[in-house]
Amino acid sequence: LIRRATAGRRQPPSTLLGPGDDAAVVATPDGRVVATVDLLVQGVHFRLDWSTPEQVGRKAAAASLADLAAMGAEPSALLVGLACPPDTPIAVTDGLAAGLWSEAQRVGVGLVGGDVVAADAVTLAVTALGSLAGRDPVTRSGARPGDVVAVCGRLGWAAAGLAVLSRGTGIPAEPGVGAAHQVPEPPYPAGPAAAAAGATAMIDVSDGLLADLGHVAEASGVGIDLVRDAFEIPEQMRDAAAALGVDPYEWVLTGGDDHALAATFPDAVELPAEWRTVGTVTDGGGVTVDGRPHIGRPGWEHFS
Amino acid sequence: LIRRATAGRRQPPSTLLGPGDDAAVVATPDGRVVATVDLLVQGVHFRLDWSTPEQVGRKAAAASLADLAAMGAEPSALLVGLACPPDTPIAVTDGLAAGLWSEAQRVGVGLVGGDVVAADAVTLAVTALGSLAGRDPVTRSGARPGDVVAVCGRLGWAAAGLAVLSRGTGIPAEPGVGAAHQVPEPPYPAGPAAAAAGATAMIDVSDGLLADLGHVAEASGVGIDLVRDAFEIPEQMRDAAAALGVDPYEWVLTGGDDHALAATFPDAVELPAEWRTVGTVTDGGGVTVDGRPHIGRPGWEHFS
Repeated sequence: LIRRATAGRRQPPSTLLGPGDDAAVVATPDGRVVATVDLLVQGVHFRLDWSTPEQVGRKAAAASLADLAAMGAEPSALLVGLACPPDTPIAVTDGLAAGLWSEAQRVGVGLVGGDVVAADAVTLAVTALGSLAGRDPVTRSGARPGDVVAVCGRLGWAAAGLAVLSRGTGIPAEPGVGAAHQVPEPPYPAGPAAAAAGATAMIDVSDGLLADLGHVAEASGVGIDLVRDAFEIPEQMRDAAAALGVDPYEWVLTGGDDHALAATFPDAVELPAEWRTVGTVTDGGGVTVDGRPHIGRPGWEHFS
Repeated sequence: LIRRATAGRRQPPSTLLGPGDDAAVVATPDGRVVATVDLLVQGVHFRLDWSTPEQVGRKAAAASLADLAAMGAEPSALLVGLACPPDTPIAVTDGLAAGLWSEAQRVGVGLVGGDVVAADAVTLAVTALGSLAGRDPVTRSGARPGDVVAVCGRLGWAAAGLAVLSRGTGIPAEPGVGAAHQVPEPPYPAGPAAAAAGATAMIDVSDGLLADLGHVAEASGVGIDLVRDAFEIPEQMRDAAAALGVDPYEWVLTGGDDHALAATFPDAVELPAEWRTVGTVTDGGGVTVDGRPHIGRPGWEHFS
């Protein structure tokens, strides 16, 4: 399986020793490596009747690669642990591998190693390694009162897609939101760009914007106030919300899995391309919208 | 869960940014990182009625740390992905974390990051990062005819322990072999020592000595002949084998999970401490014992 997943693939120059040995060796030019691991479990994070194996592979890689971007890091390599039932069709494992490679190649890295074991449910554990290229990491704890809060990438699309898919076939998944649940499109280069521009704190929006900005507020000891009207609701999302009778701002403010980036910047900074201001950092604590607490849950809770 | 698993633990100086952010940052002084991931799945690799959660945590960390040693690398950090049922008792997750930390501290590294998600079966994905300290990695492909084959660490103990545990309570697991199934004792420092001594190829014995030396033989394009009498059978193993009516050499030659190291060295090299010669590298192909093919399966096959 590992051989099928890696044979004939081209590794970038940073892969000093690729798959096939006990471990891989990856170049880390500035003497540091940024590392993160994310798990995706069948039935919890994906369903193989809603997503193709390739989409699942891309989604798994994206979750880890977005974590690197949120530190301001550029990706260097992926390692993948795959657990799956012994009778998993080869088309499924080939599809997962193709998706992982597809997402890796979008950011110019290789799949350098992995492990494949038997289990009842398909589970992917993706480790991403990255480089800060000499910069400091952008943590969650650097936000300061007076900073602006900005976001880059899609918000609420995956949640809208999940809602549409959960309702069954009555509502067409097209155009857009269903695909957003299947494969996120994290704005990878926006992470290092924000770091270079002087971002004071940054986080990957995986659990929901309010929940994840709550982590920034707590780690930084500040409050964050968002401006509801700063969020545009795209037409596809508005249509889906109307059809399902829900408030699309719930998706935008609390939907996870899009892997947008949220960051804080000193007020004087000119935001990098595609970042948009959505709020300000305050002296208080917690996250508010137009000065008021949000009613409802702030995002996805794995064990709720 | 992540906070409970990492609060109050001391990180080594190589952990530049520890748990609590989107990713960790680890020092890689020679500009390279060695990286590997291993999965352990409940019901496949461990049973929580045969092992304590702490033993499972130690075993999971050991599997990945042994892979680093087999490259000749010294460990730098661990990352852990944990999938478990939402109703998993806190004592179990605390025990897993304690075991992971215990094994990490045996080798002087920290648990720098992780992910916790819901799933039906307890699954651990342990990523280990390491340093070659300026040396070349010792791969599987460098064995040359005329080299000696040597091993370091326990062989067959975990297999004997599994056999004893599988027979139920009729035979006491003490002394030794049952514990060897529960927690391996890889000879971590023997990996970098072998690399420094000039090992030409090395591998972690996780699937069984014959199977893993088969990987070395294939990757190096050589044959390997082992000398059966070079393997000592410890008394506890001899007793367990007699009680179960099996040949203890089967455990030694085909048992996995002890994470011994096997390596090849130029004939002129003085072997580092605790390494013992068990065979020679030949011009042929495959692995033989006393010049003859081994009858039976060479080791553990995950999908057999």
